[in-house]
Amino acid sequence: MKFMDVHHGMAGITAEQLRQAHQADLEIQGDEGVRFEQAWADPDSGTVYCLSEAPSKEAVQRIHDRTGHPADEIHPVPLSV
Amino acid sequence: MKFMDVHHGMAGITAEQLRQAHQADLEIQGDEGVRFEQAWADPDSGTVYCLSEAPSKEAVQRIHDRTGHPADEIHPVPLSV
Repeated sequence: MKFMDVHHGMAGITAEQLRQAHQADLEIQGDEGVRFEQAWADPDSGTVYCLSEAPSKEAVQRIHDRTGHPADEIHPVPLSV
Repeated sequence: MKFMDVHHGMAGITAEQLRQAHQADLEIQGDEGVRFEQAWADPDSGTVYCLSEAPSKEAVQRIHDRTGHPADEIHPVPLSV
């Protein structure tokens, strides 16, 4: 199942910070069977979107919790084009 | 510039409706220099995310307006991994 998770409050995030946060997730994602695919950030509004393939939203959140950036929303996105 | 736009209130959207909405956007996107890349939907919460490459958020919205599904939020996402 694919999930889109959303983080708020990330105003001012830099390319390097986004890269490091994503890398931290990648390093432990296998513990929960999660595969983070892409992430996008809007430094002005402080919004970050992460797309993942995962067994559950809880699995996604456990990875984000452990790397110190819990998601504010996690939506399953079973449909895509 | 890449943009992530978000539509709310789409509860119950089907794969076919998502495909048709995306196709309608693709057919006229060139009028505004927009290129819609991907879209994901959560039929339960009624949320749709669209990723595009476009000259401005206004250009993205003009396409979505013309195809009858204006976005509720459009965020530039200059950073991605």
